[in-house]
Amino acid sequence: MSKTICREINLAETAKFLKKHEDYIILTHASPDGDTLGSAYALYYGLKEMGKVAQVLCSDLIPSKYSYFATKTDHITNNDAVVIAVDVADEKLLGALEDNFKGKVKLCIDHHISNTRYAENLLLDSNASAVCEIMYELLKKLKVNINDVTAKALYTGIATDTGCFKYSNVTAKTHLIASELFEYNIDAAEINRLMFDTKSKNLLQLERMVLDTAEYHFDDKCILLTVTDKMQEVTGCSGTDLEGISIISRSVEGVLAGITIKQTGDNTFKLSLRTFPPLDASAICKTLGGGGHKAAAGATLEGTLSEVKEKILAAVKDNMEKTNVWSSADK
Amino acid sequence: MSKTICREINLAETAKFLKKHEDYIILTHASPDGDTLGSAYALYYGLKEMGKVAQVLCSDLIPSKYSYFATKTDHITNNDAVVIAVDVADEKLLGALEDNFKGKVKLCIDHHISNTRYAENLLLDSNASAVCEIMYELLKKLKVNINDVTAKALYTGIATDTGCFKYSNVTAKTHLIASELFEYNIDAAEINRLMFDTKSKNLLQLERMVLDTAEYHFDDKCILLTVTDKMQEVTGCSGTDLEGISIISRSVEGVLAGITIKQTGDNTFKLSLRTFPPLDASAICKTLGGGGHKAAAGATLEGTLSEVKEKILAAVKDNMEKTNVWSSADK
Repeated sequence: MSKTICREINLAETAKFLKKHEDYIILTHASPDGDTLGSAYALYYGLKEMGKVAQVLCSDLIPSKYSYFATKTDHITNNDAVVIAVDVADEKLLGALEDNFKGKVKLCIDHHISNTRYAENLLLDSNASAVCEIMYELLKKLKVNINDVTAKALYTGIATDTGCFKYSNVTAKTHLIASELFEYNIDAAEINRLMFDTKSKNLLQLERMVLDTAEYHFDDKCILLTVTDKMQEVTGCSGTDLEGISIISRSVEGVLAGITIKQTGDNTFKLSLRTFPPLDASAICKTLGGGGHKAAAGATLEGTLSEVKEKILAAVKDNMEKTNVWSSADK
Repeated sequence: MSKTICREINLAETAKFLKKHEDYIILTHASPDGDTLGSAYALYYGLKEMGKVAQVLCSDLIPSKYSYFATKTDHITNNDAVVIAVDVADEKLLGALEDNFKGKVKLCIDHHISNTRYAENLLLDSNASAVCEIMYELLKKLKVNINDVTAKALYTGIATDTGCFKYSNVTAKTHLIASELFEYNIDAAEINRLMFDTKSKNLLQLERMVLDTAEYHFDDKCILLTVTDKMQEVTGCSGTDLEGISIISRSVEGVLAGITIKQTGDNTFKLSLRTFPPLDASAICKTLGGGGHKAAAGATLEGTLSEVKEKILAAVKDNMEKTNVWSSADK
């Protein structure tokens, strides 16, 4: 099959596209988070308001903490349903859905500058803190009714992708949209409690184990945390449970590079890297075969734990030297 | 001295008041936080823009993390300087400044519904998430220039009093003001990092130690964490360093009572209790000789650690039984 050429379209063109067709399949990325689910469901509710048929598909189980907006969706009977992907920067991120939908995504709505342009049409705003920001504007452009559940979905995506308005991706527009979403009955405090202040007993146990692995490098400008297979087995925590761990790595005073290494197979490890300026997580992870944003990026590495650590530390050190925050002379 | 009658005034009257006088002393509360400092300094910078003389006074040292806006202020030479208190709900909260300024506060700007109305004039908005919300509107009303540092001070107060837009005191207006403050060069991500995501290496070590002490009781509806003298000694963490620990105790899924016991002497322990409805932290702590709010309260207890634990657990159990969330029959 020949590679389709990706056409970047704007908000108005996207609205027109959505009006044109009748049946939609909305794909989220695997290991779904608040933004991919929030934007998928907000779009789903919007399309329903427009009288369309739609369905949300995700390769993984949707964590129960999102159940206040992520409910069962309709089943599609029409084989010609138009496929949309939201917050999916690369077809690979579709997980098990990739086999079915590779090369079939007609519209992708995303905010990752690293989007691989796999879709026929792409609505991309890399300045948006979350796809839910774009989705809110799209629903307004479509003039569809936004109900409380839709508003909750949108708020969830924005809150989770910004660490509750904490990170550098927040803009004046982010707060303006949040302000408008507060006009709905969203109970943001309860959403935030569920998203940010609720951890299971097992996760607390895992955090304790992970804190035991803390290593400091490069004059304490770098912390390295490890989550082994065994820790995940003992605590039963995996996948999105582990999101909070990388937050720990970026919270230590003076640390510019927070490394979290998660074992995903015997000799496979997933790196989550969080950095502060002038370090560039995206650049570091690129040298390791991964990618992401300037402040948060990731990569998958093969090897023993100590080999993987060595590779990652070398890449971080290199970026530290390039940006003059650390030189070997610092010892 | 006869008690002054407190007059509640509105924004326009407050603006008029500030235009009228020339010299001001601005008081913050003791153990200063982001909102009392943010609103005091925003007012200070505003008054300077108006060509007034002003000074900020606080009974305690200002923590260095606020140094990006809380700088040294002018010294007042005029003995007739008009005294303003910001975010001070009660004269007692002035700390060591109470002796000097008791009965002398001409204007109080506050958002605590519990304000004791000790000032001659009171601008009170209990719907404001932070005094900095009120202060922003006051500066706009005064049409004074808001510079980047003033905007940083205002953002800091709003962010810290709302847990970075996480709590139930956030309104549409809170986000709208934040959105307007983003038009200045405030580097909110850096402010948030300093305020919320910066813990010392030692504090991280303490957290690990405290997590090791975690005990669950009453069908996991209660968690008990202990901070011993020795942990504080080893890590060098004490006082406000420990605030985050009690937050851990309220973040575990299914937990209705989060108990943190901190050793303060050989046989003295300080209880921090966090509860969720229907439990009542204030009622529980009252039976232990302490007090506080419904969701957060405290007490000081004497005895050995195991005696103190027993007393606290009995009081919690009693409240659980009274509110029917746990009965002995649950085993």
